[in-house]
Amino acid sequence: MATIELGCQLDYQVEFETSFIFQIAALDSARQHIVQEILTCQPQQSIEVCRVGQLDHRVHRMVVQPGPFNLMYTATVETQPAKVPSADLQAYVHSRLPCKVLEFLNPSRYCESDKLEHFAWDTFGHTPAGHARVQAVTDWVNSHLSYTPGSTGPTTTACDVFLLRQGVCRDFAHVTIALCRALGMPARYVAGYAVKLDPPDFHGFVEVFLDGDWYLFDATKLAPVDGFVRIGAGRDAADLSFATLVGNTTMNQIEVWARDTGAGMSTGETGNDTAVSLN
Amino acid sequence: MATIELGCQLDYQVEFETSFIFQIAALDSARQHIVQEILTCQPQQSIEVCRVGQLDHRVHRMVVQPGPFNLMYTATVETQPAKVPSADLQAYVHSRLPCKVLEFLNPSRYCESDKLEHFAWDTFGHTPAGHARVQAVTDWVNSHLSYTPGSTGPTTTACDVFLLRQGVCRDFAHVTIALCRALGMPARYVAGYAVKLDPPDFHGFVEVFLDGDWYLFDATKLAPVDGFVRIGAGRDAADLSFATLVGNTTMNQIEVWARDTGAGMSTGETGNDTAVSLN
Amino acid sequence: MATIELGCQLDYQVEFETSFIFQIAALDSARQHIVQEILTCQPQQSIEVCRVGQLDHRVHRMVVQPGPFNLMYTATVETQPAKVPSADLQAYVHSRLPCKVLEFLNPSRYCESDKLEHFAWDTFGHTPAGHARVQAVTDWVNSHLSYTPGSTGPTTTACDVFLLRQGVCRDFAHVTIALCRALGMPARYVAGYAVKLDPPDFHGFVEVFLDGDWYLFDATKLAPVDGFVRIGAGRDAADLSFATLVGNTTMNQIEVWARDTGAGMSTGETGNDTAVSLN
Amino acid sequence: MATIELGCQLDYQVEFETSFIFQIAALDSARQHIVQEILTCQPQQSIEVCRVGQLDHRVHRMVVQPGPFNLMYTATVETQPAKVPSADLQAYVHSRLPCKVLEFLNPSRYCESDKLEHFAWDTFGHTPAGHARVQAVTDWVNSHLSYTPGSTGPTTTACDVFLLRQGVCRDFAHVTIALCRALGMPARYVAGYAVKLDPPDFHGFVEVFLDGDWYLFDATKLAPVDGFVRIGAGRDAADLSFATLVGNTTMNQIEVWARDTGAGMSTGETGNDTAVSLN
Repeated sequence: MATIELGCQLDYQVEFETSFIFQIAALDSARQHIVQEILTCQPQQSIEVCRVGQLDHRVHRMVVQPGPFNLMYTATVETQPAKVPSADLQAYVHSRLPCKVLEFLNPSRYCESDKLEHFAWDTFGHTPAGHARVQAVTDWVNSHLSYTPGSTGPTTTACDVFLLRQGVCRDFAHVTIALCRALGMPARYVAGYAVKLDPPDFHGFVEVFLDGDWYLFDATKLAPVDGFVRIGAGRDAADLSFATLVGNTTMNQIEVWARDTGAGMSTGETGNDTAVSLN
Repeated sequence: MATIELGCQLDYQVEFETSFIFQIAALDSARQHIVQEILTCQPQQSIEVCRVGQLDHRVHRMVVQPGPFNLMYTATVETQPAKVPSADLQAYVHSRLPCKVLEFLNPSRYCESDKLEHFAWDTFGHTPAGHARVQAVTDWVNSHLSYTPGSTGPTTTACDVFLLRQGVCRDFAHVTIALCRALGMPARYVAGYAVKLDPPDFHGFVEVFLDGDWYLFDATKLAPVDGFVRIGAGRDAADLSFATLVGNTTMNQIEVWARDTGAGMSTGETGNDTAVSLN
Repeated sequence: MATIELGCQLDYQVEFETSFIFQIAALDSARQHIVQEILTCQPQQSIEVCRVGQLDHRVHRMVVQPGPFNLMYTATVETQPAKVPSADLQAYVHSRLPCKVLEFLNPSRYCESDKLEHFAWDTFGHTPAGHARVQAVTDWVNSHLSYTPGSTGPTTTACDVFLLRQGVCRDFAHVTIALCRALGMPARYVAGYAVKLDPPDFHGFVEVFLDGDWYLFDATKLAPVDGFVRIGAGRDAADLSFATLVGNTTMNQIEVWARDTGAGMSTGETGNDTAVSLN
Repeated sequence: MATIELGCQLDYQVEFETSFIFQIAALDSARQHIVQEILTCQPQQSIEVCRVGQLDHRVHRMVVQPGPFNLMYTATVETQPAKVPSADLQAYVHSRLPCKVLEFLNPSRYCESDKLEHFAWDTFGHTPAGHARVQAVTDWVNSHLSYTPGSTGPTTTACDVFLLRQGVCRDFAHVTIALCRALGMPARYVAGYAVKLDPPDFHGFVEVFLDGDWYLFDATKLAPVDGFVRIGAGRDAADLSFATLVGNTTMNQIEVWARDTGAGMSTGETGNDTAVSLN
């Protein structure tokens, strides 16, 4: 069990009344216990909390009037240690997949799995189905893409990245998801915080449905999975923008942090890129 | 109230054991009462019924062994007459949208609304928000795209069609959805049956969230909306394939039909492309 | 006749031996007389001059060793006044186009004219063929795209810009070219210098083949066409990078300028976007 | 030396006056001697012959009035045997490339070499520059793409095919060209006839500039290179449509053939995919 202190600070200049939706709060789940959290706005706002997505994660909504606007979120979260999945973990065959995971087989805005089927089966079809195949996919993504901040943008898709061979965490996740779906394994995008991520930022990683549960994979291998704290899950990054704005507002600054506070996180070496998720 | 008899017949040659998911059953909802329905398979199969998507529509799953395989679905459905929405129906502003419709603002596989924002606001921003703006969008789609069977394929997106200016019902729906989302109006894809569609086929159309409810729009204007019977709704056609297969199977033939059986459908002239939906 | 002083200064840090090709020298043609020009390199280089493209424009090649590297080009160019083409200038029908212009009907890397035919004919097909139709295209491009520095990148194509509705001069030119080719009018990309361009930079514009000659069009309308000095022409910007590098080099700075020195340029009001070219 | 008899027959129904450009005539060059050729049209047409492209190949132009229209081209061509290039043939470094081949380094409509640089260098950068590297590229294309008639269309690009992993000869050529250009080797598209191609059709292959000359490569390995007869060369298939039409005409039928008539073609086993070109 690790105790992680995390948060973010977002600084805006609101020109005209703006409607915000923030997806920044840590998910409260069996694996993540929120010990304490504070959301403060300068100036104060009336905040509505909604729950969205398959994990019923929280989004915070508010309408902000013109002027400087600052939002700060801090939380202390106790996370369960990552259980190492056995290497022989199986994938469900198509006919046994639960109904509620079927939508995560479908192609999505940034994960055009329908275009990558030939490549996926040619490259990974010979690896045993299940954990080994997902591991082969993440290893491939990790070794064939270079992590290059600034090389991609908000409309970049898995296929774009597959061609260009570079991107950031969100892009690594999209390629991993697209390949898993092409191989018949439901896969979803998870946004969150990550201890030891350098430079600190929101993180995007992947969960794949194997043997009846969702398992976490991160092809970037940039931070220990034991230090991941989830915000929510969706089909791809389109579902998990940290901030959605309708109005006229300029972002001035963003700061994100996450640190392990104690002795709890013993196994968190970078590169151990798989952990069970227990939602 | 109309009474519609509809159905489909699908003929396959299964080479190796194949897992099928069919999305062909009429939705049972307040607007659509299923009087009778029959699903028959030759040879007989063990069928699992799942419910998926925001409308909890039914999908039918089965694992079929090698050999010829024929599935026939027939249903008699009583549908409520389409209420004509008033032309001054308003769109909700962003901050008032219910949480459960927010996901239908996000771009999806075949509806890249994130790329069409400038065009959408330049072209439709001066039209009053709400029903009038959606009507302007569907009129634009209807008059700027030509309905050309064979011009597009399964990976064709709204942006592809926006460039090429031709497509089929699915493409017309995708462009309409992408433009509505770009304009801040939640929009979803609906698959279904349509009376008087020529040639007969499954139909794809659109629902837009206005003033607290979902309203049906069909930019193709090929069939009367009073004769539409829904199967289910999703983000785009990626969620609503009539058949998803994992295995090795060849489709030989497909037949789809829908006919109004009685005096019920009085207002169904082609071209009246809007009707309230009451789910 | 105008006398224009122009030039550029490029500052590099060469890490490993780098092979450069520069396309920065003013074209010497009937319309552009080069009074004087100087190309200087710090440190000095052995420079090879090649001629490429349909206008036989000059490119300068050199291999530079590691260290700081600075190149400065200055020229004084006398340009002929732009003849205003008559509004009833005709386009040649397809069967009369000279062989040497046929290649400029073909789609190219950044001008996918093959995808825009339906749009082009629907939108401009009713305008009289010839100058009026090209004018309608440039007016459309000018009024439907917003000039937004930073909105596009080196791999952005005409179709991308057609969707996004924003770009820079190169993008305006690519959309104009793609539409003209889709309409059966040969069109080529011209790189050059432009007086009064703000901020100063290399400029990209268009030439369309009408009535036996190439005529200049600039959909950006950002600078007077009388102040344009051409470097060369090609199929699109892929043929006219100001610098192509093979090696390992970082660009530190670029400065570009062009100014009218005298009383020569009397008619150069911005917005007069057409002038005859006399190559 | 081989003596090849080849030709094509094209059958049209012309609805309205149509301007045609055909690129079907065998190139007359040092390597290809045209012994005899006949072009016949039913009904008779006034035919204009133009020369285009870097090889100055012939195109045939005519304006055809409404009615049935049939064109038949036959030729007897003596071709030089393919010299096997030595495996240690070098590529020129960038600074030594002749000016006239530089344009074949630029990305083109169907060969987006600018997007494939990372992949190309990661995958082929360790192979010795020159013939060995081109061979590695064609081997990669041959083993990673499946030849699947009907899987691609006229707007399909090298990047599309790189994703989908299937295509026809034109697509194999485009991927090969894009990769060679990304690696700094000038590459061009060649259209032609091919003996033993099954099913018979026009063929598309590749020439790469190595050690001062253009060398032929065909990643499809579907027919012996000794049986290739060239029509012309260009940047990609956009420059080499066998027929370009402006007007209103329907194609009814196309037939293409090429057969070796004698004992000349001794070394033509399929799979020997390289031969020197001597233009």
